[in-house]
Amino acid sequence: MMDNSTVINIGLMGLGTVGGGVAAALSGNADAIKRKTGRTVRLRKALVRDAGKVRNPAPPAGALTTNPEDILADPDIHIVVEMMGGDSPAGEYLERALAAGKHVVTANKEVMSRRGPSLLALAQSQRVNLLFEASAGGGIPIVGCLMSQLLANDIRSIRSIINGTTNYILTRMARHQTPFADALAEAQAQGYAEADPTNDIEGIDAAYKLSVLGSLAFHRPIPHHAIYTEGISRLGPEDFRYAAELGYAIKSLAIAVAEANGSVQARVHPALVPEDHLLAKVDGVYNAVEVTGDLCGQIILHGQGAGRDATTSAVMGDILNILRSMGNADGPPPLPLPDGGGGNSEARIWPIDELASAYYMRLTCADQAGVLAQIARILGDGNISIATVIQKDTDPGSGTAQLVITTYPAREADVQTALAAVAELGVVASVNNLIRIEG
Amino acid sequence: MMDNSTVINIGLMGLGTVGGGVAAALSGNADAIKRKTGRTVRLRKALVRDAGKVRNPAPPAGALTTNPEDILADPDIHIVVEMMGGDSPAGEYLERALAAGKHVVTANKEVMSRRGPSLLALAQSQRVNLLFEASAGGGIPIVGCLMSQLLANDIRSIRSIINGTTNYILTRMARHQTPFADALAEAQAQGYAEADPTNDIEGIDAAYKLSVLGSLAFHRPIPHHAIYTEGISRLGPEDFRYAAELGYAIKSLAIAVAEANGSVQARVHPALVPEDHLLAKVDGVYNAVEVTGDLCGQIILHGQGAGRDATTSAVMGDILNILRSMGNADGPPPLPLPDGGGGNSEARIWPIDELASAYYMRLTCADQAGVLAQIARILGDGNISIATVIQKDTDPGSGTAQLVITTYPAREADVQTALAAVAELGVVASVNNLIRIEG
Repeated sequence: MMDNSTVINIGLMGLGTVGGGVAAALSGNADAIKRKTGRTVRLRKALVRDAGKVRNPAPPAGALTTNPEDILADPDIHIVVEMMGGDSPAGEYLERALAAGKHVVTANKEVMSRRGPSLLALAQSQRVNLLFEASAGGGIPIVGCLMSQLLANDIRSIRSIINGTTNYILTRMARHQTPFADALAEAQAQGYAEADPTNDIEGIDAAYKLSVLGSLAFHRPIPHHAIYTEGISRLGPEDFRYAAELGYAIKSLAIAVAEANGSVQARVHPALVPEDHLLAKVDGVYNAVEVTGDLCGQIILHGQGAGRDATTSAVMGDILNILRSMGNADGPPPLPLPDGGGGNSEARIWPIDELASAYYMRLTCADQAGVLAQIARILGDGNISIATVIQKDTDPGSGTAQLVITTYPAREADVQTALAAVAELGVVASVNNLIRIEG
Repeated sequence: MMDNSTVINIGLMGLGTVGGGVAAALSGNADAIKRKTGRTVRLRKALVRDAGKVRNPAPPAGALTTNPEDILADPDIHIVVEMMGGDSPAGEYLERALAAGKHVVTANKEVMSRRGPSLLALAQSQRVNLLFEASAGGGIPIVGCLMSQLLANDIRSIRSIINGTTNYILTRMARHQTPFADALAEAQAQGYAEADPTNDIEGIDAAYKLSVLGSLAFHRPIPHHAIYTEGISRLGPEDFRYAAELGYAIKSLAIAVAEANGSVQARVHPALVPEDHLLAKVDGVYNAVEVTGDLCGQIILHGQGAGRDATTSAVMGDILNILRSMGNADGPPPLPLPDGGGGNSEARIWPIDELASAYYMRLTCADQAGVLAQIARILGDGNISIATVIQKDTDPGSGTAQLVITTYPAREADVQTALAAVAELGVVASVNNLIRIEG
């Protein structure tokens, strides 16, 4: 146990954009931190790849190191803040830090998704904190809300926009009828998308974050590899136009729903969202998370899901909360994870085939009589009821038209089977898109 | 210090709608509470006015009492949960509970507004928790976010819709062009407004809540009596129609803004909100709080601001967090209030006269040439620049028309002075409304 006069030493692993923001806040806001927590903090070491690189603001003299042992093996470092990203070696470093009795703050969605349950169990046995607000939702305080303020709830579902890159692209496509490739190029030019955008646009980044949030919500590990993911690259500007006519926006949603017997739905895919729903209004790089609980009802948190300052807000919040709880001989309160009701075994994730959903489908068909009858018969035989039909954009040159059909809720497997049969029809040139509709 | 096998006894003060929800959750969710916190809880005593009243679900045998001493003087009660409302005697009870070393959870906005700083100081010196998530925003986890996840931020402003009754009335007026009196009667019929609606419609309830949130945000007491309040009863259906034409919704906002030298703006009044802002989309009894911080940027939390279940979510969340932190010999972490930067002295609240804002004004004028010129001259002389003018709803019978003027930002005092002069003009029948515009 340490008294209030002890200087708390921070070891920072990673000094990139966000790590630099944390370093700046630790030195620049030292007075405010002292007032808010009663503690004095100091950045003692920062692990970097290149100790010779010029940095602004400059870190404290002698703080830079390229050797992780300078942090992990230093008994005077009380809190390790990990901003490296990636599963390895960050995961091993965090395990060693916890095993050495250090508190840990991490922004690492991949580590928390892959190793969260075992790291949290280790933290609990070591009576230290492991906090990870920045690992999902950036500056939106959703992780802490699930662990703390909403803890009394039986969480029923999470529906979220938790990848700012895809939301930026979709917003551009919707507003300016920009083709996907052009919108992606703009996102890259703005620095919102990486040179290799796969993790963002294919839903992998969102699946890691959904794994973190779903595990907290349902008190049971939701392994990221079992989450269904579907990217946004098939969407065309016309889909946004048709969806708007039907009263919907198109968003890439990360959804986790508690089902009977402890099983869960967990999926990331584009979806039509009614335009009067708040999730439909989330624009650009903003994120939003909708949580539905048995007591709280529907809560929506909206804010910046990424960026240096927003992520620094989350990481520094975790650090301040550790500072406030220090001095407790018994260590921090136990985390309500992983065994807060669900047990330690991984949740059974529903195969996407079992999903029941309403759908939007867009086809290119021959512009002639009787086409709809042929398609409607196949859908009807597959127990799929049509809600609306719009025929659009007739092209006299090719003799085709765009046919947009929305359905009432149907089984995904039935829809896929029926659409495969529809695609075989001589009057159907192509099945361009199939998008789930969220009510 | 107590080990995990100790049953934690709860004393509940008040067993009305929400108190009944907490009692039901304590008994009905006992297993979940044990899983999430490791603790067993029991409702030991519930203070009521009428012990003979039939209640559903029935409280535990022997739990009901009409004597507060059965809770305050019982050394075996560990947590006092206060759901009585009102400043007195609830405030005195909480003071005694804290002085006796009991943890306290309260939903009481009035007590936390009037006595928050002294009660929190007492809790800290007694090394017990005083939590009050339900005192502002109902089921929206804003209190905890300000105390915990967003603690690293220098909070710049709060703009909020935190009174569900007025928001219900304003939503009815906007959607159905309902006069204020009829919309209020509907709210009363729905149980959303009380027989005496003064506290809600005059902004007093919102001022208590803003006092709580502002004090947490700015780490300095914001006394509720210094908050400017303006009710909604002057609004007419035509104001909503004209505002919509100009691209705005009308909402009753509770606003606190940090200004230079530790002074703050703190005000509750109707305001025009741009219709594409998320606050403009908050409908019916829902609440929303927008927080702007130096790091997190703009965060919006949206959810149910009142009601049995949502309030129970907040109160039970506080109880579970106390259960999780029990067993710490050193007591809970210190709260970042009142001395988290601002000091204990009350903030200087800006007089509303000093506010600079854009305005919407609606006048009934003679329908004749030259009227606008006379009004424009007075406004111009008062350093008020006109942004838009709409003349509407000419009434041939009376020979009058509605004149709606919006201005660029101007000093409130200048606007009030100019409007008084405008009202004296022979061609002006009445000044019907003056509403601030929030950007």
